[in-house]
Amino acid sequence: MADVSGKTPTRRTAVATGVVKMGAQTLSALKDGTIPKGDVLGAARLAGVMAAKKTQELIPLCHQIAMDFCSVEFDFIPGGVGVKATASAFAPTGVEMEALTAVTVAALTIYDMCKPVDKTMVITDVILAEKHGGKSGDFVRAKKDIEDSEIELRR
Amino acid sequence: MADVSGKTPTRRTAVATGVVKMGAQTLSALKDGTIPKGDVLGAARLAGVMAAKKTQELIPLCHQIAMDFCSVEFDFIPGGVGVKATASAFAPTGVEMEALTAVTVAALTIYDMCKPVDKTMVITDVILAEKHGGKSGDFVRAKKDIEDSEIELRR
Amino acid sequence: MADVSGKTPTRRTAVATGVVKMGAQTLSALKDGTIPKGDVLGAARLAGVMAAKKTQELIPLCHQIAMDFCSVEFDFIPGGVGVKATASAFAPTGVEMEALTAVTVAALTIYDMCKPVDKTMVITDVILAEKHGGKSGDFVRAKKDIEDSEIELRR
Amino acid sequence: MADVSGKTPTRRTAVATGVVKMGAQTLSALKDGTIPKGDVLGAARLAGVMAAKKTQELIPLCHQIAMDFCSVEFDFIPGGVGVKATASAFAPTGVEMEALTAVTVAALTIYDMCKPVDKTMVITDVILAEKHGGKSGDFVRAKKDIEDSEIELRR
Amino acid sequence: MADVSGKTPTRRTAVATGVVKMGAQTLSALKDGTIPKGDVLGAARLAGVMAAKKTQELIPLCHQIAMDFCSVEFDFIPGGVGVKATASAFAPTGVEMEALTAVTVAALTIYDMCKPVDKTMVITDVILAEKHGGKSGDFVRAKKDIEDSEIELRR
Amino acid sequence: MADVSGKTPTRRTAVATGVVKMGAQTLSALKDGTIPKGDVLGAARLAGVMAAKKTQELIPLCHQIAMDFCSVEFDFIPGGVGVKATASAFAPTGVEMEALTAVTVAALTIYDMCKPVDKTMVITDVILAEKHGGKSGDFVRAKKDIEDSEIELRR
Repeated sequence: MADVSGKTPTRRTAVATGVVKMGAQTLSALKDGTIPKGDVLGAARLAGVMAAKKTQELIPLCHQIAMDFCSVEFDFIPGGVGVKATASAFAPTGVEMEALTAVTVAALTIYDMCKPVDKTMVITDVILAEKHGGKSGDFVRAKKDIEDSEIELRR
Repeated sequence: MADVSGKTPTRRTAVATGVVKMGAQTLSALKDGTIPKGDVLGAARLAGVMAAKKTQELIPLCHQIAMDFCSVEFDFIPGGVGVKATASAFAPTGVEMEALTAVTVAALTIYDMCKPVDKTMVITDVILAEKHGGKSGDFVRAKKDIEDSEIELRR
Repeated sequence: MADVSGKTPTRRTAVATGVVKMGAQTLSALKDGTIPKGDVLGAARLAGVMAAKKTQELIPLCHQIAMDFCSVEFDFIPGGVGVKATASAFAPTGVEMEALTAVTVAALTIYDMCKPVDKTMVITDVILAEKHGGKSGDFVRAKKDIEDSEIELRR
Repeated sequence: MADVSGKTPTRRTAVATGVVKMGAQTLSALKDGTIPKGDVLGAARLAGVMAAKKTQELIPLCHQIAMDFCSVEFDFIPGGVGVKATASAFAPTGVEMEALTAVTVAALTIYDMCKPVDKTMVITDVILAEKHGGKSGDFVRAKKDIEDSEIELRR
Repeated sequence: MADVSGKTPTRRTAVATGVVKMGAQTLSALKDGTIPKGDVLGAARLAGVMAAKKTQELIPLCHQIAMDFCSVEFDFIPGGVGVKATASAFAPTGVEMEALTAVTVAALTIYDMCKPVDKTMVITDVILAEKHGGKSGDFVRAKKDIEDSEIELRR
Repeated sequence: MADVSGKTPTRRTAVATGVVKMGAQTLSALKDGTIPKGDVLGAARLAGVMAAKKTQELIPLCHQIAMDFCSVEFDFIPGGVGVKATASAFAPTGVEMEALTAVTVAALTIYDMCKPVDKTMVITDVILAEKHGGKSGDFVRAKKDIEDSEIELRR
């Protein structure tokens, strides 16, 4: 585990995004709320937030960070569901892994609850979209990169 | 949680795969073992196996399954690292989520250990590749689908 | 931990119930879905099921049991919300604690999400309602006992 | 998870209480230390404190708080055992759920260890008794409310 | 994780032992029950059993085993406290690590609770004493080895 | 859990050490990297660091501390492997238990991965070597004590 004892705690924020690609019928059922297992996105949101709190248990060298905020949001896009997670903490090191963990576990939960209907879903395009705070400064993924990736996705 | 009390335990196996796309320099450093944080793939392999054992904690409606086997393997492909996880159990329900969890947490660990070098990595193409055992029978993802996805990846 | 190595695994089921008493306004807001923190009962249901899977971590001498089924249900009663959890496993020992843990953590989650509105809620009347399977045979709590307790509650 | 990044950390304290009602014989055995499973209240005390440290894992939207203090105490009352938990932290949000979780898991542990003797115990009257610190100020549950509840209990 | 899918579940038992060496005054205080933090051995016993249930989380390649029995016992020996743990399961692989984990975490808990009095305690002689069941047959550590080790200890 | 609310957070560091004694052939295989289960010391290092982050879950009365640093190192000594862990935090209480937990779980992981080859390994001489920060001041175990213990070990 990297030594962060010499770093000053500052406000750290990170945004991660990803996509669960799925067939048109699965997507319709998800939109209509007719997936038999229940409220898929509600469960995925909670699972993502709860997993973000476990990041330190899952990623071997992650520090133990107490988040001040974590949210998971979804939007329907052509061909699937976009997942976006935001994490924030006042800490000596960043919360990128918390945001990425929230996105992936939310996506896995969508997969789990929709898999009786569709086993060919794909979890894809999981990226760190933004990162603020810390010595290395702000990181905002170039819009073009994300758009390219979305175009690829929507094709 | 779905009621599986009426289902007979049988041998269940699942294979999941995914990809961590990264820049050429990051990939070289990973191949050469010069990523400063140490043995990236060794850590990712353990993290993936350990996370698979936590699937039931992460995915809200997953059953508690005791795996007889879990492995995580990597191979270098153009533009990134392929991740493949296999899970097996004698159980009344399948181990797809265990294999998918192993792949995503192994991929997140690669991201975590390489992120000082490259923040633009993408975790992508996470799929259930194969599933054996259980009432719904065998599921093997059509080779063409996976290849298409890989072509997209390599472009 | 009691030695259950000499006991034959059989089908075990348990039902536990409890009540979250709350003020009329809080109860109305809960019924109308206007509690600011979101879908209270949806979150409480998942939290209850997930906690049941952690029973062995919480209760020092509980055995590690893999449930085949766990559900949490709610119904609105005069003065509050009734919580009912059912657990089932094929195991050498019972799942009473799993059902009771599900009820209490679901109730705590209701408390957590409604507490910005009402801090005077009471978690009460948490009982084992039924237990089936195992050497000690069936246990069904006398209806009168439960009714008495409910009368007390509704007064 | 509510955004507490704008809140200033202050000293937060919470006291929660509850009751495990039980039959006269069970209560006598508990007082006499003759429950076969061993030191019931010692185990319940530890289980309550350990569970308070897991509050963030159990309650989906709870923040990760590092407590400076947590205690669980018991007293024998007519018809059962009173459970009282105190939690304290220097944090941007309160520790009510930590205290309530400690009370309920301590109560569940009492249930678990006494259930070979008595399955009709009731966990009841779990309340937030006091809360100090934070923007919303002090909250002390009116004595009369608690007394009424105890009278009800002792009847 | 080794593949145990081809192994037939059988009764597996393991016994592990260890020692916490401590100064004469600390040992007297422990015997007299005057260590300020409370019932040291009671807490250590529970901590050991609870840790054994977490063996699979702690040891990366351990299988998920549901124990039918786990106990932790102590005896006062010259110069310290002997710790002995027994674990048992009907499983395709052994429970050595469960017994060893119980011994070490019980020993760490003794250390934690006595350290305000004595920081020079030593956790030592942690061994697998016996193992029964499984293809490799019985393993019982030669009495002479253990005695030699004890002589060394008592010197 | 001791009340540390009146203590001022300061930089706390702790170093713990221990030894895994093993037969000459096992030690050679470990040095040569020919233990069949793979990279033993790499796995043990990660397991130790990950366990240190779980100290608060394992040791009943430990506070929840967020470490700024944790490392686990090994060196080959006559008759076995030395294990050394360092932990550091800015906290109101010390990190001795974090360092000791890292040493013991790293040692248990070595045992787990080498046990197909040698079941007679001994985890021994686990001590707190150093402690800095906090009201009680620095603690450095007298060199002579450690040397004596090592002499005993090497005999």
